[in-house]
Order: sequence, then structure tokens, then C-alpha cells
Amino acid sequence: MSTETYTVSGMTCGHCVASVTEEVSELPGVTDVAVDLGSGRLTVTSAEPLGADTVRGAVEEAGYSLAG
Amino acid sequence: MSTETYTVSGMTCGHCVASVTEEVSELPGVTDVAVDLGSGRLTVTSAEPLGADTVRGAVEEAGYSLAG
Repeated sequence: MSTETYTVSGMTCGHCVASVTEEVSELPGVTDVAVDLGSGRLTVTSAEPLGADTVRGAVEEAGYSLAG
Repeated sequence: MSTETYTVSGMTCGHCVASVTEEVSELPGVTDVAVDLGSGRLTVTSAEPLGADTVRGAVEEAGYSLAG
């Protein structure tokens, strides 16, 4: 089991949080996704490590970006 | 045919615009809804005048409020 944390830029409301959560949840092996609107913090738990490129792809698919 | 304009508070992104548009579009007799995110301007075209209370109800159902 792997837990990774990222910071998402551009989310402004609960709909944005829902969009990011939905896209990241669809990645293979993901068992839990937590997104905090205030901080932009995205925490992903998955069977195997996903890596930043994979997570970035899902976040961008939702219409947002990873900070840093 | 009636056209009314209101100002919606609290919208922060395109999802918010979509939510307001969807709820107001469901009001009886509505033929067109236009929402501008930047200004919050909501323009509703309907067969008969809706009135502020009716429109306010739909906007609040979407999770936002009418200004003023």
C-alpha cells in the first residue's frame, strides 16, 4: 500500500474538489482519495505507488494542475 | 415572453455556473438561461414572468444566493 501527497492548483469550490477526486479515483489500484480545498492538498492511497506523472495526468484531465 | 436579470453571489468556477444554469432551467416555462461568472449576472427568459422568489429558490437549490 502506498500513500502519496500532492498540491493541486486552481480549485475554487466543492465542485472542483469533486472533479479532482473523481478523476484520481479512476486511476488503477487507487483505494482512497482525499482532497482539501483550502490547502489544495491531494492525498492518494493506492496498491502500488502511482508517481507524479500519473497523478498529474488525472488532475489535468479534471481541468486543474499540480503545484511545484 | 419575459426576460429578467438577477445577480448571483458565490459562484467561483464553471461548475458553479453549470449548477445555477441547470436549476434555473428546470423552472416551468423557462426557455433560456444565461449566467456570467465574472459579473454573476443571471438572465432568464421565460414564457411568463417568474419573479424573484421563484428564481431565488432555484439559485439557492443550486447552493448560491441572489445578491441584493
